[in-house]
Amino acid sequence: MPKLRVNCFSVSLDGYGAGPDQSLENPLGVGGMGLHEWVLGTRTFQQMHGVGAGGTTGVDDDFAARGAAGLGAWILGRNMFGPVRGPWPEEAWKGWWGPNPPYHVPVFVLTQHARAPIVMEGGTVFHFVTDGIEAALARAREAAQGKDIRLGGGVATLRQYLSAGLVDEMHLAISPTLLGRGEALFAGIDLPALGYRRTECVSTPKATHVVFTKAAA
Amino acid sequence: MPKLRVNCFSVSLDGYGAGPDQSLENPLGVGGMGLHEWVLGTRTFQQMHGVGAGGTTGVDDDFAARGAAGLGAWILGRNMFGPVRGPWPEEAWKGWWGPNPPYHVPVFVLTQHARAPIVMEGGTVFHFVTDGIEAALARAREAAQGKDIRLGGGVATLRQYLSAGLVDEMHLAISPTLLGRGEALFAGIDLPALGYRRTECVSTPKATHVVFTKAAA
Repeated sequence: MPKLRVNCFSVSLDGYGAGPDQSLENPLGVGGMGLHEWVLGTRTFQQMHGVGAGGTTGVDDDFAARGAAGLGAWILGRNMFGPVRGPWPEEAWKGWWGPNPPYHVPVFVLTQHARAPIVMEGGTVFHFVTDGIEAALARAREAAQGKDIRLGGGVATLRQYLSAGLVDEMHLAISPTLLGRGEALFAGIDLPALGYRRTECVSTPKATHVVFTKAAA
Repeated sequence: MPKLRVNCFSVSLDGYGAGPDQSLENPLGVGGMGLHEWVLGTRTFQQMHGVGAGGTTGVDDDFAARGAAGLGAWILGRNMFGPVRGPWPEEAWKGWWGPNPPYHVPVFVLTQHARAPIVMEGGTVFHFVTDGIEAALARAREAAQGKDIRLGGGVATLRQYLSAGLVDEMHLAISPTLLGRGEALFAGIDLPALGYRRTECVSTPKATHVVFTKAAA
């Protein structure tokens, strides 16, 4: 059975998955970019985004590569798609990632506000889902044609899927940074009670990588 | 100037410093003992508690040893001293640690309920402080005679001292365990805004050790 996976989701030492005050200038909230330092230098990230001079291999890169492999669809929260709130004021906003986003598969964006799909270059199609997280998962499963689905975030979206017990596997990278405030990933979510166990834990100088796996029901 | 230090304070991956439902059988709450696995095998811990067959050296032991060195006094929250709540029902309870506790210096226990000091074997004297965290710190400073003071916990006590900006240095050991619920260390405490920076971060297979240092005011 294909999985709903969270990969490469970075949290601060104090448990925040994004900084406060997301905006066009700070897509990850103030200070949020520091969460992702572990991935920016990896070969996988640099190849995927066409930046850098080759990138590093090793544990950090292994986790980045696992996150990118075998995916048939993505699910994103509205805030991960963009800083726009409320009804879509115009159709100009097409995500943070330019004309050829790094997904290359169907991407289902959770929103309260309907919008026609957007076909991007490179195989990415943004679909806007207004009828909730289970409907989005069902549509993503169908689109993924037997491959895994990756849940990209943000924190609020992760928390909804975790609370509903729908995430099969979650890889977090705990970065050696403090945010102080922002969106707390774990508050009020009892992972063991939801059936999750910690199945991997390995540290590099840039992150502590942890994998949680949900026991089969 | 002598410091108020937190050392070897263990938290779970989901940010809890103790498990739920503390009791005589579970002094650290249900599941809380797993938080401390990194320290139990160290030479410092085994020598201090007279257990084991020598113990390990290395990074985990280095942090344990730093936590034990140079101390002139300790401060403990009431719940770290024992499971008794409310007025002291009788004078029988003298802490979790037997007749010769591992402190060997004056220990100031925060409580709402007055009690006469208890002189234990080996130099430990438990003093009960009813007039608040600043008074306890002042008394500990005087008793420490120029040495550092260690703040032992639990979580509620740490949170009080952190919020008041009174902790100079804090070493946390993030253990690869999940608790799901319990006492959340970071919730609502904005460490960067309080002047704390992350000054060390080093991982072992058993813990990610992080040190936060408060900038001089």
